[in-house]
Amino acid sequence: MRIGQGFDAHRFASHDAGKPLWLACLLWDGDGIEGDSDGDVAAHALIDALLSAASLGDIGMLFGVGADSAGAGAHGDEMLRKTVDHLHDHGMRPVSASVVVIANRPKIGRRREEARQALSRAVGCDVSLTATTTDGMGFTGDGQGIAAIANALVEPII
Amino acid sequence: MRIGQGFDAHRFASHDAGKPLWLACLLWDGDGIEGDSDGDVAAHALIDALLSAASLGDIGMLFGVGADSAGAGAHGDEMLRKTVDHLHDHGMRPVSASVVVIANRPKIGRRREEARQALSRAVGCDVSLTATTTDGMGFTGDGQGIAAIANALVEPII
Amino acid sequence: MRIGQGFDAHRFASHDAGKPLWLACLLWDGDGIEGDSDGDVAAHALIDALLSAASLGDIGMLFGVGADSAGAGAHGDEMLRKTVDHLHDHGMRPVSASVVVIANRPKIGRRREEARQALSRAVGCDVSLTATTTDGMGFTGDGQGIAAIANALVEPII
Ligand SMILES: [Zn+2]
Ligand SMILES: [Zn+2]
Ligand SMILES: [Zn+2]
Repeated sequence: MRIGQGFDAHRFASHDAGKPLWLACLLWDGDGIEGDSDGDVAAHALIDALLSAASLGDIGMLFGVGADSAGAGAHGDEMLRKTVDHLHDHGMRPVSASVVVIANRPKIGRRREEARQALSRAVGCDVSLTATTTDGMGFTGDGQGIAAIANALVEPII
Repeated sequence: MRIGQGFDAHRFASHDAGKPLWLACLLWDGDGIEGDSDGDVAAHALIDALLSAASLGDIGMLFGVGADSAGAGAHGDEMLRKTVDHLHDHGMRPVSASVVVIANRPKIGRRREEARQALSRAVGCDVSLTATTTDGMGFTGDGQGIAAIANALVEPII
Repeated sequence: MRIGQGFDAHRFASHDAGKPLWLACLLWDGDGIEGDSDGDVAAHALIDALLSAASLGDIGMLFGVGADSAGAGAHGDEMLRKTVDHLHDHGMRPVSASVVVIANRPKIGRRREEARQALSRAVGCDVSLTATTTDGMGFTGDGQGIAAIANALVEPII
């Protein structure tokens, strides 16, 4: 059994940018988020936790960085599936994973079960999702952006 | 074996508010903390880590949010015990858990063992507690509030 | 199997201070970092994760705090080795560990494998290293300092 840690943060895009808000493999109402891919911090933190647990580098190594990378424009669920395929190719599989979203918005509550199922389907094991704020403090508290902290367990495929 | 991640942050209350400072199931000297319940970020982050590991939602689902919720005025140890009861009801038990408190105050050192024992008694397994600062940076560094990051392992009761 | 969480953050030193930049057991170009020891946040977060997982206190208890402590001037790899010796003395060994560095600089990418190997040699098990930024937000985003979040699994030596 091996453990991995992941973290990601992205800035909210300006209203004029007209970007969509992707988070935890779902599309949400409200102004969107910056990022090379779809800016889904929950998916990205989970990807880093899974890759770390498997000692297979990080999201930048697997998907590249920048507007012409393999991850450019890609959605979280597609990136999570490719990550798990990569683990399988190296004889590893996810056992359990969990992610905390730290943000003022979107409000996860109403759609938590939908998000949890989308993440779990993409990863192929139970993935838990919680959400919290920082009581108005720091860069998530003043509404600049969203952060996510994830952890994961993986094991060898026997 | 399943893994969970938790995070929480609360703002220090003003001196005039006369609120108590609860952290890691202990009462500390000094100005208190905001929050629906007793504002114990270490307990709350642990609760989210335990619930995540068991795929049983989060602290808001179990205790509610706001002044008339089930968690209103509740203390961390009582909330941790209810969380573990909830896990047991669903055939799961905590195996191991750990929490980091990030804050300028209170200074944990002198009472770490007392806090560790209080947390471990409430959860029913070894719970570790460490504390650190951010060298004066960010919202914990300038004394606005306290943050906590927790992780946990749970397993099915056989 | 037991789990631990660790966190650390240090401030960049001013250019005039002429301090070296140690991170993940390697020496990097550019202005250095404040801290009693060599300020290696990746090593320090890992040490707290390992000590937490083993219920053996934290880095301050093992190495002391301040300019005349046992950790004063010590490097991350030496401190990690002493931490693992301490675990062994208590019948525990590291199974797996992972650390995320959150900072604008140094750029880890080019030397990730070197850092991963240095950390893994010091701990005696696979240690993963990922690095990310906060998109210009918060105290790591504005270049004030470096933060690191780590987790670890340990088990009893049979
Ligand atoms: Zn991202
Ligand atoms: Zn709380
Ligand atoms: Zn340190």
